[in-house]
Amino acid sequence: MAKELTTRAQDYSQWYNDLVLKGSLADYSAVRGCMVIKPYGYALWENMQAALDKMFKDTGHENAYFPLFVPKSLFEAEEKNAEGFAKECAIVTHYRLKTDPNNKGKLMVDPEAKLEEELIVRPTSEAIIWNTYKTWIQSYRDLPILVNQWANVVRWEMRTRLFLRTAEFLWQEGHTAHATKDEAIAETVKMLDVYADFAENWMAMPVIKGVKTESERFAGAEDTYCIEALMQDGKALQAGTSHFLGQNFAKAFDVKFSDKNNTQDYVWATSWGVSTRLIGGLVMTHSDDEGLVLPPRIAPVQVVIVPIFKGDEQKAMIDEKMAVVVASFKAAGIRVKYDNTDNNRPGWKFAEYELKGVPIRIAVGPRDLENNQVELARRDTKEKTAISLDGLTETVAALLLEIQSNLLQRATKYRDDHITSVDTWDDFINVLDNNTGFVLAHWDGTAATEEKIKDQAKATIRCIPLDNPLEVGKCILTGNPSKQRVLFARAY
Amino acid sequence: MAKELTTRAQDYSQWYNDLVLKGSLADYSAVRGCMVIKPYGYALWENMQAALDKMFKDTGHENAYFPLFVPKSLFEAEEKNAEGFAKECAIVTHYRLKTDPNNKGKLMVDPEAKLEEELIVRPTSEAIIWNTYKTWIQSYRDLPILVNQWANVVRWEMRTRLFLRTAEFLWQEGHTAHATKDEAIAETVKMLDVYADFAENWMAMPVIKGVKTESERFAGAEDTYCIEALMQDGKALQAGTSHFLGQNFAKAFDVKFSDKNNTQDYVWATSWGVSTRLIGGLVMTHSDDEGLVLPPRIAPVQVVIVPIFKGDEQKAMIDEKMAVVVASFKAAGIRVKYDNTDNNRPGWKFAEYELKGVPIRIAVGPRDLENNQVELARRDTKEKTAISLDGLTETVAALLLEIQSNLLQRATKYRDDHITSVDTWDDFINVLDNNTGFVLAHWDGTAATEEKIKDQAKATIRCIPLDNPLEVGKCILTGNPSKQRVLFARAY
Repeated sequence: MAKELTTRAQDYSQWYNDLVLKGSLADYSAVRGCMVIKPYGYALWENMQAALDKMFKDTGHENAYFPLFVPKSLFEAEEKNAEGFAKECAIVTHYRLKTDPNNKGKLMVDPEAKLEEELIVRPTSEAIIWNTYKTWIQSYRDLPILVNQWANVVRWEMRTRLFLRTAEFLWQEGHTAHATKDEAIAETVKMLDVYADFAENWMAMPVIKGVKTESERFAGAEDTYCIEALMQDGKALQAGTSHFLGQNFAKAFDVKFSDKNNTQDYVWATSWGVSTRLIGGLVMTHSDDEGLVLPPRIAPVQVVIVPIFKGDEQKAMIDEKMAVVVASFKAAGIRVKYDNTDNNRPGWKFAEYELKGVPIRIAVGPRDLENNQVELARRDTKEKTAISLDGLTETVAALLLEIQSNLLQRATKYRDDHITSVDTWDDFINVLDNNTGFVLAHWDGTAATEEKIKDQAKATIRCIPLDNPLEVGKCILTGNPSKQRVLFARAY
Repeated sequence: MAKELTTRAQDYSQWYNDLVLKGSLADYSAVRGCMVIKPYGYALWENMQAALDKMFKDTGHENAYFPLFVPKSLFEAEEKNAEGFAKECAIVTHYRLKTDPNNKGKLMVDPEAKLEEELIVRPTSEAIIWNTYKTWIQSYRDLPILVNQWANVVRWEMRTRLFLRTAEFLWQEGHTAHATKDEAIAETVKMLDVYADFAENWMAMPVIKGVKTESERFAGAEDTYCIEALMQDGKALQAGTSHFLGQNFAKAFDVKFSDKNNTQDYVWATSWGVSTRLIGGLVMTHSDDEGLVLPPRIAPVQVVIVPIFKGDEQKAMIDEKMAVVVASFKAAGIRVKYDNTDNNRPGWKFAEYELKGVPIRIAVGPRDLENNQVELARRDTKEKTAISLDGLTETVAALLLEIQSNLLQRATKYRDDHITSVDTWDDFINVLDNNTGFVLAHWDGTAATEEKIKDQAKATIRCIPLDNPLEVGKCILTGNPSKQRVLFARAY
């Protein structure tokens, strides 16, 4: 191995950190809870962004950009939202440093440069955006507004994990404004579908679409829709949320419009977001003890070619042959890397690209060329096959599709095998303690019971699935009547 | 006119603001000095980003992402850099709000949530990045590092202008690390060339490449290269900078590498950036009293088609014909908008798209269709011509290229006509007071004289042009000997 990795069985959490750090996705930084996204990790994010951005634009959205800072008076205008984020806000109070008279070469905050009003570094942008929409919206003709922004946000989390929970993270946040409640709800659901489509068809990460309970809702929302994924340790990951905000922000910021009959009403709102957290979910959906496993559609490198040679003559011969292959791959839109550097042995390179999750590895030596073939290794199944150089581009293009599809099938099977219906508290706890994933159980529908279950089992209601069948039953905790099972799990 | 605009002759500064605001590029926000980039302005920025990003990648660079915050102790490590930015820093001092006991429904900064070490919102990222590079670089094999990031930065400017100078702005910052001084200087110059190429061939904005004097250098740089553009009011705009940082940051953060002989040395650095300020330069390079004039290569909408009809029947007929035209344009990669909304008259639409700087407007009515033609209007020259529907896509594609080229030629002629060589102080002041642009004048090479000229004439040395001819002369202020003319201007 190029780099020693912890196995999942040894220490799942350390395995995850090893993959992120040694797989060159991200690094710790000097700022508490903030990470550095390294070029390889960022290239992955760029591919994810590009796919999502196109989906947003195809559904009629435009991008814009709103300020990083939210003045405190705006921040607190929507009370529930403010309350929800108040405890994790980075706050700018001063706008100047000065030379520290008692400490040569050092700087200090200039007490004379105190802001009259503190600025909150946005944890989310509803407040600053709805304060702006107020000036954009007068009539129904100004609606709908379908805007998205790609931005950094800051939530001062106490316990952070690379990608999964960082103080600063990158995300997109859609903020739409509508004339009617129905239209806003339709938008909320549409964007949830976009997220599910992206998660499954690009990330090969199956998700369950559902609605959050009241206590798990986004602060300031009337309803929070979500997609929930299952990680290999049996824990759930909230992978994206889409909120129907009702008229809450319109009321807080006094955003009204006049309809065709000149009647005034408050505007209806949605917001929806996914973040770099998705990368954490991606890592934990597909990877194994040898490293990352990346789905071809978003992998920064889809195919790596490693020449195996002794001496310059062999190298030159393979280089020449492979230049044609590389050009053909690129012409077919395949992201290929040809690694003929001689500072590391082929075995080291094999391990390195396995660690980095490159979907297909091609190894080629002089003997292979004599036989007009190469050795092809799949990262997902670790199968190795000798493949003819004739039609190699077509073979590889087809295999990339097959790997993409195989990863989704495998993850879906895993997920489906890890949903258990239980009817008693003991079974409920057993399933959770054995890390076997989602649990479908009856709940009496009260926030009080939900809270008790959370306290006693460390599990939360991930969602009420959208296509949930109605089924009469008894709450696993209280025995009170329930009309449907809901989806529980321990979660990231 | 759809919206009343101030003319340049009336009030140049107000004309600029009108174009930005009424042309839907940006809006003021509730945060002092920060703006909202509206969808149309952001679409322009996305086109600029895409072109630049490709140029960076084509020259071997990768994107990454580093934290928004810089701990004060890192910020002050490179003293000149810290000193240069200390007076305009937004500073995070607290990480939590709490309910204000004296003010129902309001929040206050929680005094118990004071950070042990203050965090500076990055005004530029050399400090946080070089602190990271320290862990990435051990040997010459780790070099070069060629990394760029797209990010927001904050500089607490006292006087702000939309796009030109805002407290928060969007930019890209390249940060590279090299084994040798020569390689770092070559990188600095290469990226300056990339910027000049982008400014001229995408923005149609001619620039002069040069080197800054010591007093105009980036804080912490050994040399600052720049591109300088000329605005229509005779003022210069620094449009991009590329810095050779020497070993300053490597020394401040103790970043050493061992070469092939195992000798240790500090790493050589560059950084380079352009920002949303470019949009301000774009507006002031091409626009006129009717509104924005956008170069086709980066215009969000390259062609707008406005049907002219009475009643649904005519509308349906034109819609049908134009659907074919729109499809053909899109297939040819032309960004086209078909505006058949009936909430505004054609005249209003014409003015609106003129204001928004759409390069080509096509108007089409029933009579035109009978004659198998449309009316085509160029935004740059305001010429109108009847054009056959046959081969319309090819005609339009060619015309977009011609407009792009015409804009560059026009702006280059304007710029060249506004460079004056002067030999006396009176002529120097005269040229500046008449707003006639760049002045080439002799300077004795001392910072003291440069400072006096700045005080007395409100003009700065924009740069020493890269291809500057040596020419013996006398300093316009002191009469002391000079070996070359340098480029002066009043500037944004």
